[in-house]
Amino acid sequence: MKPLRVALLGCGVVGTQVIRLMHEQSADLAARVGAPLELAGVAVRRLGRKRDVEVDPALFTTDAESLVTRDDVDIVIEVIGGIEPARSLIVSALSRGKSVVTANKALLAEDGATLHEAARAGNGDLYFEASVAGAIPLLRPLRESLAGDRVTRVLGIVNGTTNYILDKMDSTGASFLDALEEAQTLGYAEADPTADVEGFDAAAKAAILAGLAFHSRVTAEQVHREGITDITATDVASAEAMGYVIKLLAICARSDDGRTFGVRVHPAMIPRTHPLAGVREAYNAVFVEAESAGQLMFYGKGAGGAPTASAVLGDLVAVGRNRLAGTRGPEESTYAHLAVHPMGETVTRCHVALDVADKPGVLARVAELFAKHDVSIQTVRQEGHGDDAQLVIVTHRATDAALTATMEGLRELDIVRAIASVMRVEGDD
Amino acid sequence: MKPLRVALLGCGVVGTQVIRLMHEQSADLAARVGAPLELAGVAVRRLGRKRDVEVDPALFTTDAESLVTRDDVDIVIEVIGGIEPARSLIVSALSRGKSVVTANKALLAEDGATLHEAARAGNGDLYFEASVAGAIPLLRPLRESLAGDRVTRVLGIVNGTTNYILDKMDSTGASFLDALEEAQTLGYAEADPTADVEGFDAAAKAAILAGLAFHSRVTAEQVHREGITDITATDVASAEAMGYVIKLLAICARSDDGRTFGVRVHPAMIPRTHPLAGVREAYNAVFVEAESAGQLMFYGKGAGGAPTASAVLGDLVAVGRNRLAGTRGPEESTYAHLAVHPMGETVTRCHVALDVADKPGVLARVAELFAKHDVSIQTVRQEGHGDDAQLVIVTHRATDAALTATMEGLRELDIVRAIASVMRVEGDD
Repeated sequence: MKPLRVALLGCGVVGTQVIRLMHEQSADLAARVGAPLELAGVAVRRLGRKRDVEVDPALFTTDAESLVTRDDVDIVIEVIGGIEPARSLIVSALSRGKSVVTANKALLAEDGATLHEAARAGNGDLYFEASVAGAIPLLRPLRESLAGDRVTRVLGIVNGTTNYILDKMDSTGASFLDALEEAQTLGYAEADPTADVEGFDAAAKAAILAGLAFHSRVTAEQVHREGITDITATDVASAEAMGYVIKLLAICARSDDGRTFGVRVHPAMIPRTHPLAGVREAYNAVFVEAESAGQLMFYGKGAGGAPTASAVLGDLVAVGRNRLAGTRGPEESTYAHLAVHPMGETVTRCHVALDVADKPGVLARVAELFAKHDVSIQTVRQEGHGDDAQLVIVTHRATDAALTATMEGLRELDIVRAIASVMRVEGDD
Repeated sequence: MKPLRVALLGCGVVGTQVIRLMHEQSADLAARVGAPLELAGVAVRRLGRKRDVEVDPALFTTDAESLVTRDDVDIVIEVIGGIEPARSLIVSALSRGKSVVTANKALLAEDGATLHEAARAGNGDLYFEASVAGAIPLLRPLRESLAGDRVTRVLGIVNGTTNYILDKMDSTGASFLDALEEAQTLGYAEADPTADVEGFDAAAKAAILAGLAFHSRVTAEQVHREGITDITATDVASAEAMGYVIKLLAICARSDDGRTFGVRVHPAMIPRTHPLAGVREAYNAVFVEAESAGQLMFYGKGAGGAPTASAVLGDLVAVGRNRLAGTRGPEESTYAHLAVHPMGETVTRCHVALDVADKPGVLARVAELFAKHDVSIQTVRQEGHGDDAQLVIVTHRATDAALTATMEGLRELDIVRAIASVMRVEGDD
């Protein structure tokens, strides 16, 4: 049987694991695909560097563009990351009829449309399971298993670094900076942690998930994004006292009328009884609600060389089988053309802690302000007294615009000394 | 666009939901498939019965055999269940080149080979996502997403009835019979609960899972099966005292040398910190360990009309798309031809509670017996004293044969009054 020839772009943590698995499992992979898979070349930035994998040195090249356009290459695996040169290389490969497997969430979230169009034009496959939640089979279930259902909401812990930090803060009482430092020491966070802690990484994944869930096109720019750098040990303790835990969530939710949807990434309190609350350390998990299927959850490792390579190899087998059968897997599905609504229209609940003067009538004036903005209060708890009095309020569901206006109003109330913390509450409706 | 014509076999709880969804979501389904789906007929046992769904009465027929062989039928959905007439009807349909979507775990586990051969011969698709764990997308991830990885173990809660019963026993201290009665009242258990509580339902699912995980052919007969009818409130309390919870597990595990595997269904203690321990009520969850992906978990509703119909519709979309593209989805994959090893070779740990005489040397004689059978002890706890003394022992990993021989030896020791309980321990290695 004629082998399928695979070009690999990138030979870092994921790339070396892809090579190792292709080598170690070559017999199994050949049986599953129906033909052997053969490495045609590996594009790297620099030759001669020592690499943690056994591979014929002649396969390395710095000329990625020539590699992806070679006639003897059937499938291209892209694990370089970033926008360029990844985009140009993927488009080159797809335009020449090759199939592409990529783990590049940033590129898919910024300009997925260009890639999908190139795949259509070239009649090849574009698979990207590894781009969201690493090893967890998530995109294929969304794209295919739930194709007969209607997804209403996706709630996901899709960034392992921030989950590690928040879990440490929750279990040890550490501050954000101490937890971040520990995550950096252990290799869970990078020296510059911006992409993770400011939610950029999660926002790219949220855009990809929303696009698949709602059969519409979504870019990272459309995702409302807030990071976790302002979360304090006090916020975490306050959440714990109320039976909640703070997680950085990627949330994609259809509006009540089903005509639009929201996509956002922000820290939120979820009840400790929610399946996502038990997701510890750097694990990822994605909770999906669909009209008929009900509540589903997918859990596993969201990053790392071997887990990501597992997802890449799964795609490689599918793409290889499709090529042998002369067919293609499911295309981009954007038929619904639903619009993303602005954050202000998103309906959420809110937890607010207010430092207030302890005198008669304070609660009445605070309650009046909430009522004025049509935000109804679910629970109020008063803590301390005298100068240290604090009101802890959890609202019912309201639009984010109404909640924001309420917070602005609170800031102007003379009896409110400070808003100690504000956080959205998810997962208990 | 010419519609794809669908024949439905069975119009019970799942069938009526399939019809409802095909109707309510017809526009979405057409967009996702690429052509409208049209109901060609519905085979039922009796005409004229009142059904909880709107459908043209002319579509009903009692002649299922004629329906599945009609030239204008492209796809057959089988939700009758049981071996016959389901098998003959599916084989008839597949032999004539139609594609089949089925939820029939019993048939797949007893004689899947016949169905897969008919699909190959007819060049049609055989999809069966709904047969295991209802709405949870599980088989597609195992068949496709993990196709580039090597699955080492599957641990699953795949029967909602028994999970509901065990969860009630754990949370309320109820006896097995009281919990069963409550499950029956709530409709979670049938009047004759044998298939669930004796593990037959879980064993069929275990056979299907093992076949997919290890790329080998497995039948329900090869599954070692024990039910939950002997579990007492004392067992549950004893597990709780040790930090464990009792679940009915379907376990498929590769042997250490990778050449054989075991498939079994039995109650087991798992640590309360294990992700499966938090699976409550009638939910299902399947924990998968793969060499590269690491630990994955899939969670959701394992039964019910709408959840099962969601899985059926997901398959229907895939099968419909394949037909339009003139191709087929992944075939049965049995290339590995691994053998199922006997239960005696399965390696597990064991929790034993012994009623013993409280006199010097008892522990020494018990420990000696374990050592004689090469079973090493991890922890021993002595409870009570005098006539009520109890030894609670948890072993290290040993073969089931050695553990069984040890239990037989204990029964013959004069200092052991009774073996109060024996249970395997899983999920903490």
